[in-house]
Amino acid sequence: MKAWEKNIRRVTPYTPGEQPKRPGIIKLNTNENPYPPSPMVEQALKALDPAALRRYPDPTCAKLTQALAEEYHLDPEQVFTGVGSDDVLAMCFMTFFNSEKPLLFPDISYSFYEVWAELFKIPFQKIPLDDQFQIRTEDYFESNGGVIFPNPNAPTGQLMEQSSIEEILIANPDSIVIVDEAYIDFGGESALHFLNQYDNLVVVQTFSKSRSLAGMRIGAAFASKELIKYLNDVKYSFNSYTMSSAALAAGEAAVRDRAYFEETTQRIIRTRERVSGELRALGFQFADSYANFLFVTHPRIPAQQLFEKLKEAGIYVRYFRQPRIDNYLRITIGTDEEMDALVRQLALLTK
Amino acid sequence: MKAWEKNIRRVTPYTPGEQPKRPGIIKLNTNENPYPPSPMVEQALKALDPAALRRYPDPTCAKLTQALAEEYHLDPEQVFTGVGSDDVLAMCFMTFFNSEKPLLFPDISYSFYEVWAELFKIPFQKIPLDDQFQIRTEDYFESNGGVIFPNPNAPTGQLMEQSSIEEILIANPDSIVIVDEAYIDFGGESALHFLNQYDNLVVVQTFSKSRSLAGMRIGAAFASKELIKYLNDVKYSFNSYTMSSAALAAGEAAVRDRAYFEETTQRIIRTRERVSGELRALGFQFADSYANFLFVTHPRIPAQQLFEKLKEAGIYVRYFRQPRIDNYLRITIGTDEEMDALVRQLALLTK
Repeated sequence: MKAWEKNIRRVTPYTPGEQPKRPGIIKLNTNENPYPPSPMVEQALKALDPAALRRYPDPTCAKLTQALAEEYHLDPEQVFTGVGSDDVLAMCFMTFFNSEKPLLFPDISYSFYEVWAELFKIPFQKIPLDDQFQIRTEDYFESNGGVIFPNPNAPTGQLMEQSSIEEILIANPDSIVIVDEAYIDFGGESALHFLNQYDNLVVVQTFSKSRSLAGMRIGAAFASKELIKYLNDVKYSFNSYTMSSAALAAGEAAVRDRAYFEETTQRIIRTRERVSGELRALGFQFADSYANFLFVTHPRIPAQQLFEKLKEAGIYVRYFRQPRIDNYLRITIGTDEEMDALVRQLALLTK
Repeated sequence: MKAWEKNIRRVTPYTPGEQPKRPGIIKLNTNENPYPPSPMVEQALKALDPAALRRYPDPTCAKLTQALAEEYHLDPEQVFTGVGSDDVLAMCFMTFFNSEKPLLFPDISYSFYEVWAELFKIPFQKIPLDDQFQIRTEDYFESNGGVIFPNPNAPTGQLMEQSSIEEILIANPDSIVIVDEAYIDFGGESALHFLNQYDNLVVVQTFSKSRSLAGMRIGAAFASKELIKYLNDVKYSFNSYTMSSAALAAGEAAVRDRAYFEETTQRIIRTRERVSGELRALGFQFADSYANFLFVTHPRIPAQQLFEKLKEAGIYVRYFRQPRIDNYLRITIGTDEEMDALVRQLALLTK
């Protein structure tokens, strides 16, 4: 063994959802949007001057920040942007959770919370969801170093009431509370309206789902001017130029096209509701989803078996080999045609 | 004071070189390339299917990695890519420097080394350059937790001999040694050829300077397969998708166009050599530069005064208010026309 090997950070690498190489696969495993981004994104990328790429991008991300501020009726100084919500969330962990007390988040939740907590040496405590996979608000009332949860939760797709979120905000005047709204645009109500009242709130969103821009890596955080300034200070202190000029242009264009955004998110919601009915008719059990995926279990056929058979049939969904959820499948909402193919297969497999 | 304020990371934000808003400024302050990226970059971006942006990018960055491996005659598994060399370097710090012993780097060097060391709680020791701003190799022979230095050094532009680099590699079998080659393509010899002999070497490069892609955020690390695997494991463990599909496509195209790369870097070198002569004729003193900038001082006129007067004349250069170098200007090599304007101004200011 080399002496330097003992200084190397050893990790268990995360395995992202498979990106199949062969064509014809129906890909319902990474919660991507089945529709392309707004045509305005294409125009913005075409309008990008290649010669200008020799310059560093705008470190303040001013135009994208401005577009988001206008869209959500906020001050631009209340908006922070980054390289996908993973980057934004990692920055929030680094900036806000430097406490001796544990950060609280649900046991069934976005798997990276635990990863970032370990990375930044933040103590944490995972709080079990109840038997219906719901967050019990009162579990988040004890003394802590911060709170984070997705709403809707992932991978359950369940939505928390605004009144429950407010209870958690009120119970935690001493902590920053992050509401991770990666999937909020598929029928849920955002907590953004609480920003006027609660200075301990941070709302995080992504362009990877509802804005069809997973390939461009864009995320955002919304909070008080004070908290956003802390985030920017940390960002500038160790990497001034995170978002490319292309991402900044594409993101701004996507935000500006509200009509397209509403049309495509509504279409996904309609498909989700229809397919929910069809899967329940096949015996699948699940809570109502407010995300662009369904989190389903079947009383007779093990999820892992369905996962493998679907894969053989060229339909990729997500299966988590994890306690409590190892009999569930997470199925991204695709186009109507893709979902029809899925339902046909599942009808065969559950006969 | 709010209770959560004590849990917030407080930093002194870094001030990047000014990005002037008003037109007509001659911008020689951030070491950007005066020439646009390869025409193949424009073609690659035009060929990018906007609809495909709904998908996550390739987390393995396979095509870009392959292009770099072919260009430098390496195995693709010896190549790691990231969001600019700042991202790549930060990942290297996080992965390789988890020691109780100090990381060693020069006192006059890239200012972010210190920032990342503090961020990841890595002990470090800054080693003074000698009076000619040169690295004394023997200073890096003592027991340490890692070594990093730029070659050519920034902001001095001075090149280290390959034999000196090899001495440091040989003297440090127990440490990872990173050679940060952000500016190597402007006349220096890369340490890449040492990768066959020394398994403790990591070479880091960027697309922001010689490849005219500062706006796309692309950087790379080259090392043994083993070290690159450690880097990828750490990357995947906390953020699988760092580089956008647009950056991957632009980067690959830039690497594939070697003729353009050689033409533009040679042009910058020719301009640098010519302007070096002209500035010396005005009395400026400086070591030969092997980078796309000059690091100059004048025996009579204080650097800060020149900096301010140039700014008034619409020419931005870089001035560091730092011990030992506060009488120096760092001047990026621009086009011949831009440099002519600079020399004219400096002739007036030093008369």
